Amino acid sequence: MPSKQRNIVGIDLGGTNMQIGVVDSANRILGRCKRKTRPENGADGVIERIAEGVETACKEAKVGLDDIAGVGIGAPGAIDMVGGVVMEAPNLRWMDVPLAKLLSKKLKDIPVLVDNDVNVAVYGENAIGAGQNAPDVLGVWIGTGIGGGLVINGKLYYGGFGTAGEIGQIILFPNAPLGNRTLEHCCSRKYVVERLVRLIRNNNPSILTEIADGPLEEIGAGTLGKAYERNDELTRLVVDESADLLGTALSGFVSTLALPMVILGGGMTEGIGRPYVERVAKAIRANVFPARCQKVQVVATKLADDAGLLGASLLAREKFAS
Amino acid sequence: MPSKQRNIVGIDLGGTNMQIGVVDSANRILGRCKRKTRPENGADGVIERIAEGVETACKEAKVGLDDIAGVGIGAPGAIDMVGGVVMEAPNLRWMDVPLAKLLSKKLKDIPVLVDNDVNVAVYGENAIGAGQNAPDVLGVWIGTGIGGGLVINGKLYYGGFGTAGEIGQIILFPNAPLGNRTLEHCCSRKYVVERLVRLIRNNNPSILTEIADGPLEEIGAGTLGKAYERNDELTRLVVDESADLLGTALSGFVSTLALPMVILGGGMTEGIGRPYVERVAKAIRANVFPARCQKVQVVATKLADDAGLLGASLLAREKFAS
Repeated sequence: MPSKQRNIVGIDLGGTNMQIGVVDSANRILGRCKRKTRPENGADGVIERIAEGVETACKEAKVGLDDIAGVGIGAPGAIDMVGGVVMEAPNLRWMDVPLAKLLSKKLKDIPVLVDNDVNVAVYGENAIGAGQNAPDVLGVWIGTGIGGGLVINGKLYYGGFGTAGEIGQIILFPNAPLGNRTLEHCCSRKYVVERLVRLIRNNNPSILTEIADGPLEEIGAGTLGKAYERNDELTRLVVDESADLLGTALSGFVSTLALPMVILGGGMTEGIGRPYVERVAKAIRANVFPARCQKVQVVATKLADDAGLLGASLLAREKFAS
Repeated sequence: MPSKQRNIVGIDLGGTNMQIGVVDSANRILGRCKRKTRPENGADGVIERIAEGVETACKEAKVGLDDIAGVGIGAPGAIDMVGGVVMEAPNLRWMDVPLAKLLSKKLKDIPVLVDNDVNVAVYGENAIGAGQNAPDVLGVWIGTGIGGGLVINGKLYYGGFGTAGEIGQIILFPNAPLGNRTLEHCCSRKYVVERLVRLIRNNNPSILTEIADGPLEEIGAGTLGKAYERNDELTRLVVDESADLLGTALSGFVSTLALPMVILGGGMTEGIGRPYVERVAKAIRANVFPARCQKVQVVATKLADDAGLLGASLLAREKFAS
C-alpha cells in the first residue's frame, strides 16, 4: 500500500527561474510552481522564495508538507553533495551556502538533497527520459554555457574531486588565444549569438535582423531555431559549425569511455532540434575509434524543462523514500 | 597454507617482443623469458613461441606447468575479453584469433585470460605500482603510438563497447587536415621523431645527428632522452611542445572525470623521464576546471617494462586463483 509519504518535491534552481514540482512514486508531477529566483535578494531571500514555491506546488497537488518524504534540488555550480552545500554558484552569487540545511529548516525539517543542476537533469533523462536506463551515459547541456553529467553503471559519477561532468571548459583549440579555446567558447548559445551578431554587424545579411524581438545580442535559442528552420544561411553556417565542433570534442569521450549513449539538452538542443542533434551525432561518428563506437546513440532530451526537477526528485526518492 | 598453485604466468605480448614471467602470490617474478614475437610466422607460430617461453620461464622459476593456476596475457589491439579473442591486432597481423583457447590447449588446458596490453599495464601500475590503489586512474602509454587504460572504482573500465581507453585517436586540432589531427599524430614518439628529422633536414642543428646510432628516422626514446638531458634545443622544443599538447588534451579528461590520478608510461615517459612528466602535469593543471582538479596526481610508471606482465598476472590471479 503506497503511503502519501511517497511524494517527493523536485526543484530545478536556475539563476533566473526556479521550477518546483511535487512528484509521486510513478514520477507524475501532481503540482508545480515556476517563479523567478531573484538572486539579488541574497541566499536567504532565494531560499525563502523556494520554500514559498514548495508550499504553492503542494497546494496545487493537494498535499501537505507532512506528505512529502524529501526534497531534491539541482543547483547551478559546484556542490558538496555530502554536506548539501552550494560551494560556488556564480549565477546565484553564492559562496558556501548550506542549502540543504537552510531549506530543510524552512520546510518542517523535511530532508533535502542537493546536487548539480546538470547532474540531476542527466540522471532524470537517463532513468525515465531519453536514456532508457543505459548503464553509461554522458549528458551535455548546451545553453548560455555548457554543462555535463556522467552516469556510469546507472549512477551519477562524481570522480575523485566530486565535480565530474564539467565538460564546458575543456580545450578545443590548444593554440587559440584565451577566450577562444574552450568548448563553451566555441559552442554555447552565448558564443553562437555573439558570432552571429559580429557577422551581421559586418554586413552579412540574415533573417535574424527581422525576426529578433529585441536587441540582437539577446537572441534566444528559439529565435535561432526559427531562423535555422527558415534556412537562413548565416544562422546555419554558425550553428552547424558549432555542432560540428561539439561533436568532434564529444567523440574523444565516446572513444575513450566507449560510451554507448550521449544525451543532448539545453537551449541549443531544444531551439534547433533534430538537425542539431543529427549534426552533432554525425561529427561524433566521423571521429570515434574504433569503428564499433559509431554505434553510440546520440539523442535529445525528452523531459525537456522537467528533466531537472524530475531527476532531483528521483535522487531524493532513492535517498529518503526507498 | 599457500599452495604451489598460487603461481600465475603473466605475459606482455608486443609486436616485436614478448615478456613472460612466473609470478607468485606476493607479485614476485620467480622466473622470466623475453623473446622475439616474430609475427611473420603467423598466429600459430607466435602462440607456439609463447608456449615455449612459458616453459622456459617455468624452468627458471623451478615450477612445473602443474603449479600454474592460470595465465594472463596482454595483447596489442582490440580484444574480446569475454571470449579471449584478439579481434584486430595490426602489429601482429591478427584478425579474430581465439588466443585464450589456442594457448590454453598448448599449456595442458591451464585457463588463459586475454586483455588489451595497455589495459593490463595500467591495471598493474594502479594495483601495485605508481597508482597506490587510487580508485580512479587514467593511464596513458606514449610510445610508437598512444594507448590508454581507465580504472574506475579499482576495476578496469571497458565501457559499452568493451574498448574503453582508446585515447590515441582523439582529436586535438579539429580543423587540421587528416593526419595532423589526433593525439597520436601530435604526441607519439613516432611523430616527435618525424618532426625532428624534418627540422634537421631543413638545416636546424641538433646533437641528434651525432648521437643517433643509426638512421635518424629510427631514433628511439632513449636517444631523445639523452639529447634532451644534454639541452639540445631542437629536441627540447619538439618534445616540450608534444608534452604541452598531451597535457592540454588530458586536462579535458581530468576535468570531466574529476580524475584524481594520471599515470604516464611508454617509451617517451621512460626515455625523457621526469622533465616530461612534469611538463605534462603542468599543462594539465593549467587547463583543468574547477581549480580543485589541479590536485590531480600525475606520475610515471614504476613497474616500467614489467607493468604489462605483472598486470596481466594480477587479472588472471583474480579470475583463476582467488
